[in-house]
Amino acid sequence: MKKANKKFEAAIIVIGNEILSGRTQDVNVSFLSKWLNNNGVKVGEVRIIEDKEATIIKYVNEMRKKFKYIFTTGGIGPTHDDITSKSISKAFKLKYGFHKEAYDILEKYYKPGKFTEGRKKMAKLPATSSLIYNPSSGAPGFIVRNVFCLPGVPSIIKSMVHGLNNKIIGGKKILSQTISMQTIESEIAKSLEDIQKKFNKEVEIGSYPFFRLGKIGVSVVLRSTKKNMIDDCYKQIVSFVKKNKIKIIER
Amino acid sequence: MKKANKKFEAAIIVIGNEILSGRTQDVNVSFLSKWLNNNGVKVGEVRIIEDKEATIIKYVNEMRKKFKYIFTTGGIGPTHDDITSKSISKAFKLKYGFHKEAYDILEKYYKPGKFTEGRKKMAKLPATSSLIYNPSSGAPGFIVRNVFCLPGVPSIIKSMVHGLNNKIIGGKKILSQTISMQTIESEIAKSLEDIQKKFNKEVEIGSYPFFRLGKIGVSVVLRSTKKNMIDDCYKQIVSFVKKNKIKIIER
Repeated sequence: MKKANKKFEAAIIVIGNEILSGRTQDVNVSFLSKWLNNNGVKVGEVRIIEDKEATIIKYVNEMRKKFKYIFTTGGIGPTHDDITSKSISKAFKLKYGFHKEAYDILEKYYKPGKFTEGRKKMAKLPATSSLIYNPSSGAPGFIVRNVFCLPGVPSIIKSMVHGLNNKIIGGKKILSQTISMQTIESEIAKSLEDIQKKFNKEVEIGSYPFFRLGKIGVSVVLRSTKKNMIDDCYKQIVSFVKKNKIKIIER
Repeated sequence: MKKANKKFEAAIIVIGNEILSGRTQDVNVSFLSKWLNNNGVKVGEVRIIEDKEATIIKYVNEMRKKFKYIFTTGGIGPTHDDITSKSISKAFKLKYGFHKEAYDILEKYYKPGKFTEGRKKMAKLPATSSLIYNPSSGAPGFIVRNVFCLPGVPSIIKSMVHGLNNKIIGGKKILSQTISMQTIESEIAKSLEDIQKKFNKEVEIGSYPFFRLGKIGVSVVLRSTKKNMIDDCYKQIVSFVKKNKIKIIER
């Protein structure tokens, strides 16, 4: 892989036995990917891993060197299986303990007498980490260098990322255009391949079959940072689709 | 990590730019995890990677040595972005070309004259691979040693795995029991931790907050291969829940 590609690439590390067991359907990857794309950052890889300290440390250290940004989800709550903050501290060889700003936020958030031991655990973070504010449930996420640690609950993540838009430096926004047609992949494979060859690496053409409302179809997705290239490529696809009398469902 | 744990562990490699871009919501991981659990196999890790030959080869070779089974999803269709079969051939240093059995299946599947070049591509597989039959759309998946390659379309995967039940050798089935209660994690964190300590590694206790129908709650999930251990652990949790007058929503 070319080094240059990694300049605006992120990786997501999903920390959670509940995702690996199939009990919980992850929806954070697609949300974070779309939000990062809008910030000109492409997600290059996702790993879903167990709630195990050694695994978290190993993978965070491995991936933070390969990608510009790492996002972790899960494991920052108050229970015994929430080990992300401690593991990230160890990964960076930072002290793990009460973070003054986080402690103050949580102390104010809870009613007097309600800032219990369990809740205090959520104020324990890697020393020198900066906070990701949480408008929906108080307990903050945190950033250590290029590693951004978020909770696992989708609605809370959604409320937190807005505060991060100015902390992410992206490249050109990745544009995409989709054309869905009533056909099957093997009917269009050859023509798509020819068009892909013409546009080389400038436009990435993806082909995704679907079965929807009893209809069989293919969505062709064009992705590029260059608007004019997408437009050109799109025209060529529409032209071969019309020539072959394939019905366009949506574009 | 202990070597013994890997004895009945699988990893899933999701091959697909469309998942990484957030365009498509993956649902195959949770389906495959549950199906593997039912066969006594635990999913230890998932990687979602790009449609890039070098990446597929590197990760398949890295992970097939660490896990008993590898499942890949995606990239075995007829279009230019379907590169899994060729990449797996290279990973195992096997010839990539027409697979007689797959060719015969597809030739019979399509009407005379309809077995086009695009479709013929789906009969190109690693030499010596064995097939995973596809009752819903003809084109088979394939197995090379401990690597099982499936398509990306969820409904097709579901139709294919039944034929694999006798090819997966699992350990004891992983049992689980859930108890959902109207509380917040920080209220139960200390008690859960104490119970987790008692059951050490015999029962894995997970705690998952939820917001559902306007209600806040926590689902506590117990997982173990030992029924009596789960029962014991469950009783202790119910006992502290009742003592603390926490409302049980579902069990």
